[in-house]
Amino acid sequence: MRPSGRKTDQMRKVSFERRISKHAEGSCLVKFGDTHVLCTASLEDKTPPWLRNSGKGWVTAEYGMLPRATGERMKREAASGKQSGRTQEIQRLIGRSLRSVVDLQALGERQISLDCDVLQADGGTRTAAITGAWLALRDCLAWMESRNMIKLEKVLKDHVAAISCGIFAGQTVIDLDYLEDSTAETDANFVMTGTGGIVEIQGTAEGAPFTEEQFSALMGLAKAGIGELVTLQKAALAG
Amino acid sequence: MRPSGRKTDQMRKVSFERRISKHAEGSCLVKFGDTHVLCTASLEDKTPPWLRNSGKGWVTAEYGMLPRATGERMKREAASGKQSGRTQEIQRLIGRSLRSVVDLQALGERQISLDCDVLQADGGTRTAAITGAWLALRDCLAWMESRNMIKLEKVLKDHVAAISCGIFAGQTVIDLDYLEDSTAETDANFVMTGTGGIVEIQGTAEGAPFTEEQFSALMGLAKAGIGELVTLQKAALAG
Amino acid sequence: MRPSGRKTDQMRKVSFERRISKHAEGSCLVKFGDTHVLCTASLEDKTPPWLRNSGKGWVTAEYGMLPRATGERMKREAASGKQSGRTQEIQRLIGRSLRSVVDLQALGERQISLDCDVLQADGGTRTAAITGAWLALRDCLAWMESRNMIKLEKVLKDHVAAISCGIFAGQTVIDLDYLEDSTAETDANFVMTGTGGIVEIQGTAEGAPFTEEQFSALMGLAKAGIGELVTLQKAALAG
Amino acid sequence: MRPSGRKTDQMRKVSFERRISKHAEGSCLVKFGDTHVLCTASLEDKTPPWLRNSGKGWVTAEYGMLPRATGERMKREAASGKQSGRTQEIQRLIGRSLRSVVDLQALGERQISLDCDVLQADGGTRTAAITGAWLALRDCLAWMESRNMIKLEKVLKDHVAAISCGIFAGQTVIDLDYLEDSTAETDANFVMTGTGGIVEIQGTAEGAPFTEEQFSALMGLAKAGIGELVTLQKAALAG
Amino acid sequence: MRPSGRKTDQMRKVSFERRISKHAEGSCLVKFGDTHVLCTASLEDKTPPWLRNSGKGWVTAEYGMLPRATGERMKREAASGKQSGRTQEIQRLIGRSLRSVVDLQALGERQISLDCDVLQADGGTRTAAITGAWLALRDCLAWMESRNMIKLEKVLKDHVAAISCGIFAGQTVIDLDYLEDSTAETDANFVMTGTGGIVEIQGTAEGAPFTEEQFSALMGLAKAGIGELVTLQKAALAG
Amino acid sequence: MRPSGRKTDQMRKVSFERRISKHAEGSCLVKFGDTHVLCTASLEDKTPPWLRNSGKGWVTAEYGMLPRATGERMKREAASGKQSGRTQEIQRLIGRSLRSVVDLQALGERQISLDCDVLQADGGTRTAAITGAWLALRDCLAWMESRNMIKLEKVLKDHVAAISCGIFAGQTVIDLDYLEDSTAETDANFVMTGTGGIVEIQGTAEGAPFTEEQFSALMGLAKAGIGELVTLQKAALAG
Repeated sequence: MRPSGRKTDQMRKVSFERRISKHAEGSCLVKFGDTHVLCTASLEDKTPPWLRNSGKGWVTAEYGMLPRATGERMKREAASGKQSGRTQEIQRLIGRSLRSVVDLQALGERQISLDCDVLQADGGTRTAAITGAWLALRDCLAWMESRNMIKLEKVLKDHVAAISCGIFAGQTVIDLDYLEDSTAETDANFVMTGTGGIVEIQGTAEGAPFTEEQFSALMGLAKAGIGELVTLQKAALAG
Repeated sequence: MRPSGRKTDQMRKVSFERRISKHAEGSCLVKFGDTHVLCTASLEDKTPPWLRNSGKGWVTAEYGMLPRATGERMKREAASGKQSGRTQEIQRLIGRSLRSVVDLQALGERQISLDCDVLQADGGTRTAAITGAWLALRDCLAWMESRNMIKLEKVLKDHVAAISCGIFAGQTVIDLDYLEDSTAETDANFVMTGTGGIVEIQGTAEGAPFTEEQFSALMGLAKAGIGELVTLQKAALAG
Repeated sequence: MRPSGRKTDQMRKVSFERRISKHAEGSCLVKFGDTHVLCTASLEDKTPPWLRNSGKGWVTAEYGMLPRATGERMKREAASGKQSGRTQEIQRLIGRSLRSVVDLQALGERQISLDCDVLQADGGTRTAAITGAWLALRDCLAWMESRNMIKLEKVLKDHVAAISCGIFAGQTVIDLDYLEDSTAETDANFVMTGTGGIVEIQGTAEGAPFTEEQFSALMGLAKAGIGELVTLQKAALAG
Repeated sequence: MRPSGRKTDQMRKVSFERRISKHAEGSCLVKFGDTHVLCTASLEDKTPPWLRNSGKGWVTAEYGMLPRATGERMKREAASGKQSGRTQEIQRLIGRSLRSVVDLQALGERQISLDCDVLQADGGTRTAAITGAWLALRDCLAWMESRNMIKLEKVLKDHVAAISCGIFAGQTVIDLDYLEDSTAETDANFVMTGTGGIVEIQGTAEGAPFTEEQFSALMGLAKAGIGELVTLQKAALAG
Repeated sequence: MRPSGRKTDQMRKVSFERRISKHAEGSCLVKFGDTHVLCTASLEDKTPPWLRNSGKGWVTAEYGMLPRATGERMKREAASGKQSGRTQEIQRLIGRSLRSVVDLQALGERQISLDCDVLQADGGTRTAAITGAWLALRDCLAWMESRNMIKLEKVLKDHVAAISCGIFAGQTVIDLDYLEDSTAETDANFVMTGTGGIVEIQGTAEGAPFTEEQFSALMGLAKAGIGELVTLQKAALAG
Repeated sequence: MRPSGRKTDQMRKVSFERRISKHAEGSCLVKFGDTHVLCTASLEDKTPPWLRNSGKGWVTAEYGMLPRATGERMKREAASGKQSGRTQEIQRLIGRSLRSVVDLQALGERQISLDCDVLQADGGTRTAAITGAWLALRDCLAWMESRNMIKLEKVLKDHVAAISCGIFAGQTVIDLDYLEDSTAETDANFVMTGTGGIVEIQGTAEGAPFTEEQFSALMGLAKAGIGELVTLQKAALAG
């Protein structure tokens, strides 16, 4: 029995609120239950040094948590003077995930920066961030297309969405909330495209090692869940 | 004529959304027009070193802006490794303003940390932050009272609210938005209590120096505006 | 009764020692009683990035305290790896105050950096710094005029000086020393020009809020005191 | 055809040199071909704050590269003042991997710090580090057993080893060297125990997304390779 | 011929102004010609962690330069966020030099911090700092003796003073000013006690290596110069 | 009697292993007994800003210690976010020592960076680093000569080697190991060229001051020892 009463293959209620920011070229407030992440996409007229004069652009991400997004107030990273290893690991993951569906050549020599700021956390912030950031990125590219800067369909090759799965109380479950996440035996994050390609897999035994069979079961849950998320992304675009 | 069409003594639409955070002991999303600040109050069982064993508590504040709260994306302070002088100046102001209406002895040896994070900026973020943080602080104290930790009315002596005034296009105006703020000749921030006491005055000539008469006019606008804000705070508590 | 025996409207003995530095283009050791600040003005052939190719120059300030300028030795900011919020707040104030009387266009694309280093502190370091830095700046501009780089009277539009006032033991007093400052109920800093224009007002209730009448009294003291300081600056230039 | 001429399922020559350090309680110089990592285990009489008085110990890891371990000299992290996101990600992985086979309760309130310093890099530094650090950890525990501090077999539950696999030129291959790694379409790292349990899986599409079948093939290669590494660890202990 | 017209064995005019600081337990403004260093000694009721409960005290030093102490304005170390290697090297030297004549056991578990801040630089700042800091330290110890905390003569075993010598334009000269220092072929700093014991020698070939004979000549100059400095220290104490 | 049983004028066994790095243009693993330092020379196509367009090149050095190079594990400098004063002092010394025998004009506008990383420490790491770095530098220059970039004999004017001497248990001894170094009364480092020129002398009284006679004895030991080291460098080149 899951603490939330959800079935093992049942995700939390997911919602997307697009165009939440007055300033950003693309933005989305994504909610996976009580996990709320504000994603903005900023178009910038610069690229990293190693891409200068290559004709290629870049998509990057930064991740942050408000100090009281969590049950206990955490130290503000700006005040402590550095980003934690966890923060850096997550923002690298978000950036890689989004780049996997972008044609950087078709984007041209520009950078799009995705800022994913967790307003409230209840487990699964990185997977919510990736899933919401895709919508912010897409709306930023649509904004660019409307100004004849790019062709959206050439730059954005597919959807990307992400979900966590894990082994909790001996059962494989999807979309762990904080209560589950903090005691799960195994925790895995999956990032996949709209056509089912795998972009990133991260599986970690928190307690005992896991078996190949268990891992397959987690991947099965993830495939179904990411399919649902992509359907919801499409509904958000249509809405 | 103001860019927004407002009258010189007309503030933007102000709203308060209390209990916006699942985790914080007190919280408030405050909006002054398009300026949106999320304020949370966190009760912590520690005090600064200089208050150890004094029987007195502390109220402090931290301030941040999401990178794309503004028209141009700003560098994330956590990534650049330090808080700007402006950030530190603002968070010191918020902390001082709130402490001016708190009886630290009656609070006891505990700290309340106010986090004021600007989700979207359009001028006047520090005054919105002070005004919203007062509600978060008050709800945190109510939470403590409901657990018999303190007497709310003994700890919180009065309301506090803040507003900016300035000289724009030769006229004294209240509650400047970004367009006005960036070209104002004089910019002043006022923090006052519910009973009209002055807690903080900061007036700066951005261009030519100003006169004592102009400053009196600004203070007159501020007194009226802060009166309105206190009325709105009371309505939010009643609502 | 003030601890120093001064009358409520009596400033400490103020002195200026110009050309105290062998190297700087302008310099002044300013003393407000036991508060001693060494101010140097350095002409630099660069401007901040946002002014490049604008034809305009810049005036900026940095502030520091020697570790044992105070009663208790303070940690050296260079050793602790960052400037405190207080330091940054003060150096921003000094820079704004001086820029208010400089025609940056007439200065041309150059920067003048004012370094205000407190050798000994006894309250009022920021107001002494502003008042002394004006002389260092003026002598730097005179140095430039003597090399036909600028016209001094075109660049420097007026005097600037500053004084603190406060409510101590229930009375409004001018030029608080450390003993007064550390127990004052209200503390206010005023920056004004030689012609009486107001450049900056900062008033803070340290304990109970203050009234508009009290604030007017503080401003009255400040106007008189700054008038005296400007007279002393003129005497220092004549001497 | 692989650049090195190896078969798709052929690892590089692997060697372990134990007791390479005069000072450390356990140490091992591990080589995967031209990738050389010096691993030391240091017993420390302290634990992280969150374990104080819990009776449990801790195993942690730090990772570094000498500046010229690579083809181009890299900036020294100590000189640039911070560890990169990549460094932090790797050292967190090493620590988690080793803790998965340690009974922290049986270790008692002590910390073992594994330092993994890359003397020379040619791809696969993190997997070599995990595999070699296990030997350093084991010898540290043996050192402790010889002083009657612990029972080795109670603390260390199993072997741990790691290998990278990837899709290079359309083929699934094991133990990528730098030439392969830098152009691989997919890159995956596997950490497993001596009894075949999975501790960590990290798979990343560097170019096009990969399929579940491809991922299964990579896992199959990894299982065989890690089996070989465990055999070599045993031989090193016997030797 | 030296730029200053001095003879090869002629030091600059040296002066000491004791009790220059209102707050410090000991202080001295030392001038070696145009090199001016403000030295303060602060008694602190703490010791470094490694001396806790040892019954021994500590003497340490910090060194800084005002940004415009030099011909070109230098970046303020507090603003750049770290102390340069040169600064750290010098403050370690000052601390070692003073400790060489202090009986740390007789001092008891207290720390004396010497702050040496260069107000104006013209070569030889570290040697002036050591020579002046000795007087500040001595006066701090006298302050302590007057409060019956220590016996001055038990704690302070001897004088310490320092001088630079070098090879300039082919000649061995003493007490190099900036003009000489910046073009000297060899630069050496000597720290000696009042009884002629050697505490520290640092000799560096800036251009061609030097010979043992040249080094002996430098040491001869230094011995004479330090003898003079000790005489001047004694005169300052008597005066 | 020395702890190691060595005679007072007997150095530890010294060995050089050249071309230890697959990537670096020059490299050497130097051992002075149990002190092992890995030195790499990296050719870089850049120079410090102050040499731009001067036609001159630069030779610089960085120094580091692996955390468990020592008896007690030391904090990793990359993790603590800065290099200690000791580290900076040593790397400045290594750089100066090598530059003393290099014709920077003949090198041309390029930089050679020497990285000296202590794998295992037992006293004398800085002198071993200088002596080994000279070989790495020499092999880097030979690599350049073989590509017709420079003439080796024009750029490299002489050998450089270094040794520590000290007063231990009342006797002057050469090449102190850790046991001796940590209790020596006086510690001195000497850097000399192949032709006997002195490049750097650093002598420090750790306890009582030393005399000129004692210092002469130390220098005599050093001259003989450095002569031997140069002979060994030549043998390593011949080997």
